[in-house]
Amino acid sequence: MNRLKEKVLTLDTMNPCVRRVEYAVRGPIVLRALELEQELCQGIKKPFTEVIRANIGDAQAMGQKPITFLRQVRLSTALAPLPHQAMCRGLSTRSSQVLALCIHPDLLKSPDFPEDAKRRAERILQACGGHSLGAYSISSGIQLIREDVARYIERRDGGIPADPSNIFLSTGASDAIVTVLKLLVAGEGRTRTGVLIPIPQYPLYSATLAELNAVQVDYYLDEERAWALDVSELRRALRQARDHCYPRALCVINPGNPTGQVQPRECIEAVIRFAFEERLFLMADEVYQDNVYAEGSQFHSFKKVLTELGPPYAAQQELASFHSVSKGYMGECGFRAGYVEVVNMDAAVQQQMQKLMSVRLCPPVPGQALLHMVVSPPAPSDPSFAQFQAERQAVLAELAAKAKLTEQVFNEAPGIHCNPVQGAMYSFPRVQLPPRAVQRAQELGLAPDMFFCLRLLEETGICVVPGSGFGQREGTYHFRMTILPPMEKLRSLLEKLSQFHAKFTRDYS
Amino acid sequence: MNRLKEKVLTLDTMNPCVRRVEYAVRGPIVLRALELEQELCQGIKKPFTEVIRANIGDAQAMGQKPITFLRQVRLSTALAPLPHQAMCRGLSTRSSQVLALCIHPDLLKSPDFPEDAKRRAERILQACGGHSLGAYSISSGIQLIREDVARYIERRDGGIPADPSNIFLSTGASDAIVTVLKLLVAGEGRTRTGVLIPIPQYPLYSATLAELNAVQVDYYLDEERAWALDVSELRRALRQARDHCYPRALCVINPGNPTGQVQPRECIEAVIRFAFEERLFLMADEVYQDNVYAEGSQFHSFKKVLTELGPPYAAQQELASFHSVSKGYMGECGFRAGYVEVVNMDAAVQQQMQKLMSVRLCPPVPGQALLHMVVSPPAPSDPSFAQFQAERQAVLAELAAKAKLTEQVFNEAPGIHCNPVQGAMYSFPRVQLPPRAVQRAQELGLAPDMFFCLRLLEETGICVVPGSGFGQREGTYHFRMTILPPMEKLRSLLEKLSQFHAKFTRDYS
Repeated sequence: MNRLKEKVLTLDTMNPCVRRVEYAVRGPIVLRALELEQELCQGIKKPFTEVIRANIGDAQAMGQKPITFLRQVRLSTALAPLPHQAMCRGLSTRSSQVLALCIHPDLLKSPDFPEDAKRRAERILQACGGHSLGAYSISSGIQLIREDVARYIERRDGGIPADPSNIFLSTGASDAIVTVLKLLVAGEGRTRTGVLIPIPQYPLYSATLAELNAVQVDYYLDEERAWALDVSELRRALRQARDHCYPRALCVINPGNPTGQVQPRECIEAVIRFAFEERLFLMADEVYQDNVYAEGSQFHSFKKVLTELGPPYAAQQELASFHSVSKGYMGECGFRAGYVEVVNMDAAVQQQMQKLMSVRLCPPVPGQALLHMVVSPPAPSDPSFAQFQAERQAVLAELAAKAKLTEQVFNEAPGIHCNPVQGAMYSFPRVQLPPRAVQRAQELGLAPDMFFCLRLLEETGICVVPGSGFGQREGTYHFRMTILPPMEKLRSLLEKLSQFHAKFTRDYS
Repeated sequence: MNRLKEKVLTLDTMNPCVRRVEYAVRGPIVLRALELEQELCQGIKKPFTEVIRANIGDAQAMGQKPITFLRQVRLSTALAPLPHQAMCRGLSTRSSQVLALCIHPDLLKSPDFPEDAKRRAERILQACGGHSLGAYSISSGIQLIREDVARYIERRDGGIPADPSNIFLSTGASDAIVTVLKLLVAGEGRTRTGVLIPIPQYPLYSATLAELNAVQVDYYLDEERAWALDVSELRRALRQARDHCYPRALCVINPGNPTGQVQPRECIEAVIRFAFEERLFLMADEVYQDNVYAEGSQFHSFKKVLTELGPPYAAQQELASFHSVSKGYMGECGFRAGYVEVVNMDAAVQQQMQKLMSVRLCPPVPGQALLHMVVSPPAPSDPSFAQFQAERQAVLAELAAKAKLTEQVFNEAPGIHCNPVQGAMYSFPRVQLPPRAVQRAQELGLAPDMFFCLRLLEETGICVVPGSGFGQREGTYHFRMTILPPMEKLRSLLEKLSQFHAKFTRDYS
């Protein structure tokens, strides 16, 4: 009885699909960044004084200034924000007021809250079981908020109708993306489901396909043409994939993560025609739809383009479009709220999707309440509209300036090339690494860009994610860095990074 | 081009594992209940005036009265709760104050909030990225709150140490249970992972095993002995399962859902010895650990019993224990917060678990903040302790009275037998159904107890879940009903249900 038994669950006996999962955005480099932070706290001397986590698009962790729409509302002096709070708070005053009222309804009697915030809070609470955020909602989300989302989509798409029953709220967009991928996975051997994803991609896709044991089919974005998506490349990828799997879905990330390109309308049309001809279910990851900066670039939703293409696409092409409160100008990552709209989905499959979601009961209700605020901002007729609009524009304009600055500083550095950051929240520059560095990395069993990023972290405290975690053409090296840090911090970051690259190149030449 | 193409994603082409998923707690009967509610709203006449959703353990939807610990705190008159709010709010005043402060930090300047609530809120915000609930946390949860959870477990288990690095916060307990099951799934054919689950079970288990294509191995609880768990029955189930799969894990739900039994300590010891001898990973679903009502019954955590058993169990038996803020006396279902503590898990597997969780970024941060409040209630030295304790006891005492009432009313009805509801939030009575009703159900393609529950819903508006959704011995029929409705409503519900059963029996005799 006292013998030492081997564990039941070991690397050898565990789920091999889970073992194959990789998620670079929070991978080894981020774990090392956490260790370095702890070492700094313990007083261990480093060549830097803080770790800067530029690995992830986390606006509020980077101190993004809040939209403060309707800040003119009657607030007692006691409730005026402290300056440091204004810096570290992400929600607009009104949104956080409404949420605070929902969470702590005693405040509904407080004279310090404006009446319209109270009316919004009461509207949300009325729609909740027991009038409380603490009750479960129905699995597809609170009906009222699904209706709000539908109206939001209709406004976005110039009046094209959206049906609340096609909208499912979720625990962030990730949750909804995984759910749709789960529905699509079937077959074995040569009939195993293949899913086309862009390279470079956001690694949620590769991680989920690995976990589900589906086949990842890579199509390459064209770096030489600002990460353009070419249908000829889709065709090549599809043709090759049909030798060994059954491709059934095509994922597009627009605006691009990590690549920051914004697809022109003609490209979206071509992709839809291709998907229809080749019988592919379309998944449109549109979580950065508010983050478009480049002049001449504009966001076109797949739903709108598909509808405007008319028959046969409008009534037949299957589409799932994803959105989130974590990005845009709000950046409310911590609330884990998002939604998917499905278009032309088979009704019976849609019931299966609802059933699958019900097993996890419901998305977080505070996040649903927040989503309500995001999709129902002040209307043009509201007194607060002008200020809301101005502040929203200011945040987006600052992001646009940071996008431009990033491109500019990187492109001044020899050996770094950065495509324009047309949208989203990241740059994905290409770096030349000297052959001796590549060799040293191989000796250490590391991808060359992982080696570069690890050295960068150890010597400067800057945490970025190697391109190998997103996929890239063989022999090219990149990293992903968020543009979210405050302007001056970003400038110094970009300069330090460029200098480090120069030093790294010298050291290994 | 204009021909009508078949959909890419249909019932025939979709993931067959997802098709096999069933989740009765929110299944067809609940969808029908929603329809009936809408019909009532439209003024359609029914033999009842409201639909009572007794299908799910959703305390706040049932109007559970809040714990109002520290209600004596200095509140301006303006902030005194309205009576109707006291009825429909679930959070304690203090907890909801702290959360409101976290969500809307402007309130930190308000004189209407007590200093200690502000200190708590500031402590939580300090631990958040950018001092905001809107930033991502690390994937395993905010370190401070993992430490709070560890201390909570230590207090619960009489000082047995808990290591924060073994604690992973999650999106409700469901999320953590699915994660651990995912790790365990491997193999094909006769080496496919088998997981022992109780029958009756909470259908998250059967649903997840179906989705993961693992083998569900049923062991039956003994209804004649108040749903006792017998090791001889575990042994039978295991022996038979080894013919066709590779059983690697054993799930226990204690207190039982839907069955309400509370396991005595000797039984837990026997289960641990059995798991160790047979090399099974133990999963202890302990989300109802605060819900123990029966005299002589007491909650014993698997972690504590395992540790006190000493070698070889203490240092070797692998265990994952799950908890949630959705149940207990708080019932904060909507926040989707929970955690898992792993014990003796292989270090490399634990890293894999962390990696898998990181793909979904992090659990909802407002829920993490709420979990902090649940695991750090007033200490015995706090001025608020006595009142907190008294109110907590009052809620639990009322649940105990409802448990007793349920058992009593059902057992007075001919043809209904109800075991004592020792714990959790449900009764799971056995009902005799007349042969003609069974025959009629079969003609309709329904499980006989589904037929009974559907008729009950249509004729009385009472929504309960048929036993077939949880599993039961062949030829027996049950339903699950929550004990959460307010006392007088519950009494009338129980009486109506008993009367309906009598009428149903007459109608089909």
